[in-house]
Amino acid sequence: MEVYGMNAVLHRAQILVEALPYIQKFSGKIVVVKYGGSTRNEDSTSFFQDLVMMKQVNIHPVVVHGGGPEITALLESMGSQVQFVNGLRVTDHTVLDAASMVLVGKINKQIVSQIQSYGGNAIGLSGIDGKLLLAEKKQSKDVDLGYVGEIKEVNCTLLRGLIEQGYIPVISPLGVDHQGQRYNINADTVAAVVAGALNAEKLVLSTNVAGLYVEENGEKQTISAIGAKKIAEYIASGQIHGGMVPKVQACLEALSRGVQRTHIVDGRQEHVLLLELLTDTGVGTMVTKEDDV
Amino acid sequence: MEVYGMNAVLHRAQILVEALPYIQKFSGKIVVVKYGGSTRNEDSTSFFQDLVMMKQVNIHPVVVHGGGPEITALLESMGSQVQFVNGLRVTDHTVLDAASMVLVGKINKQIVSQIQSYGGNAIGLSGIDGKLLLAEKKQSKDVDLGYVGEIKEVNCTLLRGLIEQGYIPVISPLGVDHQGQRYNINADTVAAVVAGALNAEKLVLSTNVAGLYVEENGEKQTISAIGAKKIAEYIASGQIHGGMVPKVQACLEALSRGVQRTHIVDGRQEHVLLLELLTDTGVGTMVTKEDDV
Amino acid sequence: MEVYGMNAVLHRAQILVEALPYIQKFSGKIVVVKYGGSTRNEDSTSFFQDLVMMKQVNIHPVVVHGGGPEITALLESMGSQVQFVNGLRVTDHTVLDAASMVLVGKINKQIVSQIQSYGGNAIGLSGIDGKLLLAEKKQSKDVDLGYVGEIKEVNCTLLRGLIEQGYIPVISPLGVDHQGQRYNINADTVAAVVAGALNAEKLVLSTNVAGLYVEENGEKQTISAIGAKKIAEYIASGQIHGGMVPKVQACLEALSRGVQRTHIVDGRQEHVLLLELLTDTGVGTMVTKEDDV
Amino acid sequence: MEVYGMNAVLHRAQILVEALPYIQKFSGKIVVVKYGGSTRNEDSTSFFQDLVMMKQVNIHPVVVHGGGPEITALLESMGSQVQFVNGLRVTDHTVLDAASMVLVGKINKQIVSQIQSYGGNAIGLSGIDGKLLLAEKKQSKDVDLGYVGEIKEVNCTLLRGLIEQGYIPVISPLGVDHQGQRYNINADTVAAVVAGALNAEKLVLSTNVAGLYVEENGEKQTISAIGAKKIAEYIASGQIHGGMVPKVQACLEALSRGVQRTHIVDGRQEHVLLLELLTDTGVGTMVTKEDDV
Amino acid sequence: MEVYGMNAVLHRAQILVEALPYIQKFSGKIVVVKYGGSTRNEDSTSFFQDLVMMKQVNIHPVVVHGGGPEITALLESMGSQVQFVNGLRVTDHTVLDAASMVLVGKINKQIVSQIQSYGGNAIGLSGIDGKLLLAEKKQSKDVDLGYVGEIKEVNCTLLRGLIEQGYIPVISPLGVDHQGQRYNINADTVAAVVAGALNAEKLVLSTNVAGLYVEENGEKQTISAIGAKKIAEYIASGQIHGGMVPKVQACLEALSRGVQRTHIVDGRQEHVLLLELLTDTGVGTMVTKEDDV
Amino acid sequence: MEVYGMNAVLHRAQILVEALPYIQKFSGKIVVVKYGGSTRNEDSTSFFQDLVMMKQVNIHPVVVHGGGPEITALLESMGSQVQFVNGLRVTDHTVLDAASMVLVGKINKQIVSQIQSYGGNAIGLSGIDGKLLLAEKKQSKDVDLGYVGEIKEVNCTLLRGLIEQGYIPVISPLGVDHQGQRYNINADTVAAVVAGALNAEKLVLSTNVAGLYVEENGEKQTISAIGAKKIAEYIASGQIHGGMVPKVQACLEALSRGVQRTHIVDGRQEHVLLLELLTDTGVGTMVTKEDDV
Repeated sequence: MEVYGMNAVLHRAQILVEALPYIQKFSGKIVVVKYGGSTRNEDSTSFFQDLVMMKQVNIHPVVVHGGGPEITALLESMGSQVQFVNGLRVTDHTVLDAASMVLVGKINKQIVSQIQSYGGNAIGLSGIDGKLLLAEKKQSKDVDLGYVGEIKEVNCTLLRGLIEQGYIPVISPLGVDHQGQRYNINADTVAAVVAGALNAEKLVLSTNVAGLYVEENGEKQTISAIGAKKIAEYIASGQIHGGMVPKVQACLEALSRGVQRTHIVDGRQEHVLLLELLTDTGVGTMVTKEDDV
Repeated sequence: MEVYGMNAVLHRAQILVEALPYIQKFSGKIVVVKYGGSTRNEDSTSFFQDLVMMKQVNIHPVVVHGGGPEITALLESMGSQVQFVNGLRVTDHTVLDAASMVLVGKINKQIVSQIQSYGGNAIGLSGIDGKLLLAEKKQSKDVDLGYVGEIKEVNCTLLRGLIEQGYIPVISPLGVDHQGQRYNINADTVAAVVAGALNAEKLVLSTNVAGLYVEENGEKQTISAIGAKKIAEYIASGQIHGGMVPKVQACLEALSRGVQRTHIVDGRQEHVLLLELLTDTGVGTMVTKEDDV
Repeated sequence: MEVYGMNAVLHRAQILVEALPYIQKFSGKIVVVKYGGSTRNEDSTSFFQDLVMMKQVNIHPVVVHGGGPEITALLESMGSQVQFVNGLRVTDHTVLDAASMVLVGKINKQIVSQIQSYGGNAIGLSGIDGKLLLAEKKQSKDVDLGYVGEIKEVNCTLLRGLIEQGYIPVISPLGVDHQGQRYNINADTVAAVVAGALNAEKLVLSTNVAGLYVEENGEKQTISAIGAKKIAEYIASGQIHGGMVPKVQACLEALSRGVQRTHIVDGRQEHVLLLELLTDTGVGTMVTKEDDV
Repeated sequence: MEVYGMNAVLHRAQILVEALPYIQKFSGKIVVVKYGGSTRNEDSTSFFQDLVMMKQVNIHPVVVHGGGPEITALLESMGSQVQFVNGLRVTDHTVLDAASMVLVGKINKQIVSQIQSYGGNAIGLSGIDGKLLLAEKKQSKDVDLGYVGEIKEVNCTLLRGLIEQGYIPVISPLGVDHQGQRYNINADTVAAVVAGALNAEKLVLSTNVAGLYVEENGEKQTISAIGAKKIAEYIASGQIHGGMVPKVQACLEALSRGVQRTHIVDGRQEHVLLLELLTDTGVGTMVTKEDDV
Repeated sequence: MEVYGMNAVLHRAQILVEALPYIQKFSGKIVVVKYGGSTRNEDSTSFFQDLVMMKQVNIHPVVVHGGGPEITALLESMGSQVQFVNGLRVTDHTVLDAASMVLVGKINKQIVSQIQSYGGNAIGLSGIDGKLLLAEKKQSKDVDLGYVGEIKEVNCTLLRGLIEQGYIPVISPLGVDHQGQRYNINADTVAAVVAGALNAEKLVLSTNVAGLYVEENGEKQTISAIGAKKIAEYIASGQIHGGMVPKVQACLEALSRGVQRTHIVDGRQEHVLLLELLTDTGVGTMVTKEDDV
Repeated sequence: MEVYGMNAVLHRAQILVEALPYIQKFSGKIVVVKYGGSTRNEDSTSFFQDLVMMKQVNIHPVVVHGGGPEITALLESMGSQVQFVNGLRVTDHTVLDAASMVLVGKINKQIVSQIQSYGGNAIGLSGIDGKLLLAEKKQSKDVDLGYVGEIKEVNCTLLRGLIEQGYIPVISPLGVDHQGQRYNINADTVAAVVAGALNAEKLVLSTNVAGLYVEENGEKQTISAIGAKKIAEYIASGQIHGGMVPKVQACLEALSRGVQRTHIVDGRQEHVLLLELLTDTGVGTMVTKEDDV
């Protein structure tokens, strides 16, 4: 090996050792990561590498994924009509089957095999398998959304067993009730509830924006940290709106279930998960219980 | 409770007790069941009840399923062309995704939730999950079939762990290699290889015919038991042909891997799995290593 | 197999599957069964079959037996005198040895080997073995009954260990104190206390009458369910009297120790244990904590 | 405490420490002890203390007991006739019940509670319980001895589990076959076979003579050590005869099953078990595989 | 073996059995023993034998040792000056290294190998190893004592694991903080804190006096038992003074942490540990929480 | 965080991920590292960081250390004479105590606390503790070296238990025999024997030269890989000589005991352990069984 090469390796070793204190901080902890549907079209190589690296250094990622746009695409390619009421997809049998096919049969297996291609071992599960997400029909006023569910109980024994055996669980957001009826469930909510049930150290929601922002004087200001009270104000004033509302609500849900830290990060950013772990302040927006953390 | 009712219950109790010796014979044993694609359209209620009953009496079913016709249907509904060479499906990326969606995302979850509706707890896995079926590209002369694989190794630790925790594993016939490349695998072969790897007591292949038959003088004769040598003769003479050939080959494969008994049964028959267990001679055709059993 | 035979087997399979929901209700639970001395002379084949069937479907029976009449018979055959004070047997050394011989050496081993003859595996223990029933001398006013004991503590670790290893424990109603002094203990009480200590789901007392009855207008009325308060009234009024009093008191004892359901059933009835499990209302009399259940 | 007392305690401490090397030699090992029927009438206090002491210092005794004379006594007290053919008891149903009552119901429980009175915890089992001694009918030429069995298999899992949980197993010499038929078995043979199955370090047969002796010139000469070949000679020459023959045969049986050392000791001697352990040469007669040990 | 020899062995067996009740009282319990520096120069043979004997009879000793005089000797032989402030050793780097060398490298290994020479298996650990004694700098008014620490946490998982595997832990009184800074800690305090953390049954402090004494009328009166309140009085009045003060304070510390009994014994007495266990009243002085025990 | 900072972190993340394949290659494996006495005076910060980093990424280092020069220094400071015969230290009682003090009491604890200062958890053991290195006196012709030992057996159960609990074992090269006699043992040999006993993946000997070299034409040529046969030639020809001979012999010893790879590296090189792992060819000299690897 020439001198040049050895210097490069030495540099590599130094970098590894600099990362050590950051890694030790989360060693043995569970981090639930929501892998956003909208960021999936980008090249996600670094995202999967980060998951494998985390597992290798004894941090335990659990992945929850969505897939809304691809469900719509499949339904359209099959000639089915897609119907939304107040922004929520009406889920009949056809839609449920399409969602299950896209989420469990396609996206989940792509994530699992991508993780495996970097030497990790992932195991894909829907909330149906082993009654991982025991659910019931979500009650909504005025309108019947069909097979849309909410979670009653998480099978933590199953998840913890797999985590301890060295697997990275990858969860599709479907649930099942005791009668075997399957339900579609919002993926952000699944991530929040699973994080709470597993006593996760962190919930990381990967989105396609650079964290949470408010518009002041017509300019977008990214927020690095925000508390629950402030969020309520911003939602009321309309400063947080649209797709960001369910994200912050998922964060608040996780916090109320005992998760220590929740983060909204930009899934398009290379190595966003390692960046989140290897920096003191994190990247994106940290949503906390108290306003001043 | 009226007298009449009590007599009925007494009868029920007597029946249960009569079944005891048959149940004890297989207590604690693993039975791999191939759930045939072609029988799936019928009402399969009794099939799922049988699986749950088996698990309840300490017999451990492992289900492998297929789904060829539905893969074709999905591809057609999406406007894709289906191509076969020598009866084997050419599997490009589109076909692989469609197979994965139908097998893992639809059929597997239907089976899992059906089992759950009768009070069992099933867990659906593809061969990709946890590298359950470590595979490599199947080499075939003359023609490139694309992503069609054959199994190199079964992750028995994962399966045995789930079985011991009380789950009924339901396996979709897909595999993965160390680089994360996924493959479609023949479901009968998966059932045979998994049965061998788990040291299963029985392999039961559920088909849409009344077991194996030969035609003599233009009449179909169902065979109740047959050995390997006789099968070779019948295949050579064309008496066993068509869709039955891969079934008997799967049986021989399982036998060569140490499975005690293999059976080809009629999946359309009500309670066919319990019938198989509760009778001295079994139903359908038993394929054995030696000709005279 | 002829068509007739196959229909019979199909009927058997259907019956099994119909029993499934009843079985699932008690799956993994412990049921303590008092096997009554007075019913032992009848043909008890179905009783032992029922125990083995229960164990096979993952319900865990624990058997406690009595044997008063046979103790008396042995003592008489040996020329010893039997003395009762207020209906209680005075237990000197000779009586204690005779009781131990009949209970542990004869009846217990008969039960154990009967269960084994139907393919179950039973293990017979007296309360002396492993200090299973740690006891002390029962204090009674006016009269010294000799070596008659009451239970201070049950060795649940020993029992649970055997149950998990697949054994059906069969317990003879003798106890021992820390000084190695053995005691005779009432078998109904043993059953109640053991049921409480094991957090059993059910206590079933098998007797030689068709459950609890009251006499109204000179006619016996079998009671299907009764609560603690009503029982007190009936005992006070003399409507429950004689041998039934200790039975209902054992039920109340078990209920006060946290057992969910207690039943007094007719041990002479064929398959009485399975009947109890396979019917919605049970057979015989259910004694509950509250009057209106 | 006065000076005198302290000196006595110091002496006690010194004695304990002197015993240490002897104890360490057998630490963690299993010693099977046959507790002879004929020595049972003496005061056996020290015998039970020795068992408890052994267990306390991490040597694991397993006790097998006999009880022939008391079986005869019970049968006679009940007016039954006792029949022997060539010195072997003909065992019909009545005899089997009597043997079971005396062995399991009386002697076994006396031993168990005696051990408990010195602070040990014993658990009494017959070979029937948990199919501890799986047996079959002993075939003998010319004469049908009835329910006399020989051992096919020992349930070592059960015994080892109890030993590890801190219990001293006490075994009554009865066996059972798969059909639930019980058998009477020779206690010396049970001890030898159990010792072999458990890979015991020692088999100690307690008798009512001072070890094995030969008569030379009309004088009894106690033998301190003897090998298999010499024994054959002595039996042939009649120098070993009568009740000693089955004892030495049991020793040879144990040796052939891999037991390291076998001893015939005088059960009437105070603390005979500790003497055996605490001396370099042992007490009584050591029977070995080779003649010169 | 001659008659004389056998009588001697019989005597030995009787002594062993007489010790049984005393041994049983502490069976399975942990006893923390402070092995005093000042008694180390005497012949300690019997001390190590006692430890091995205790472990053999299922009593679990944990040894903590000191070594002040030898630290001073080493420092002097190396030409270093030893400085004390108010009787406390000022611990700079040189002193810390010397203490570590003497305690861990010399005394600890001597104790460990002595125990091993009697057939026990000891494992020597300093409080640094496995962060056994997590410490911080001891704050003292007026003067900086350097690297003198106090214990924040004991790694009980490590200790219990070793105890269960059959080892006798031997602990040197050094601690470490999270930054890897090592500290010297008072050995009596270590013994008290470790005894509390392990829920020890007893703390035995071995000294070079015959227990605690008070001087009345110019005569030393050894106290056999004393309570906390009385001790406070005696310290205030100066009746307990000098080296005895830290001993009684260590006892009180242990009592306040839940240890049942604490004892100050004369380490020069032969077999002092066994004497302590084998007598009803113990030897030396028992310090208790309440004055009247 | 400013842009500059984020780029730096991104770079860090990329470096981590590039290291992943190297890390995965050794994941779960044991690497025995000899930490050389002569390199200890340099700043070893990076050496300890590397050990902690290895453990964090699931590679299990076991450290063996030496300390010859410091033993000599202590002996001299205490006024003792140091005697060597043929380059081997004559080890009398004084020397043995000094060696034990320096090795176990000083160097071992420094290494342990250094590792802890970077967040790892180390546990220091001499070969005496738990009879980790069971030894006997090394026989040498002509001269009596005193208490110099060689290893008979390694207590792998103890080491593996500690490794699995997350500790980095740090071993001082002393041994003990069954009589409690302690011995000094050559540290390179200890490393080789321990590596063999643990089935280590690698043995890394850290020295104060840049690997193995030969002198050709008066110039030092560092060898990157060499086999056993070539080494024999070089030793014979004197090309490998002096302090390098025991190093290569330790490598050959390890290889003969089944270790896969052995390396002689330059302990003065920063991050030498990570360099060894993170490069394809390693650093220093790899000594292999076969000449052409």
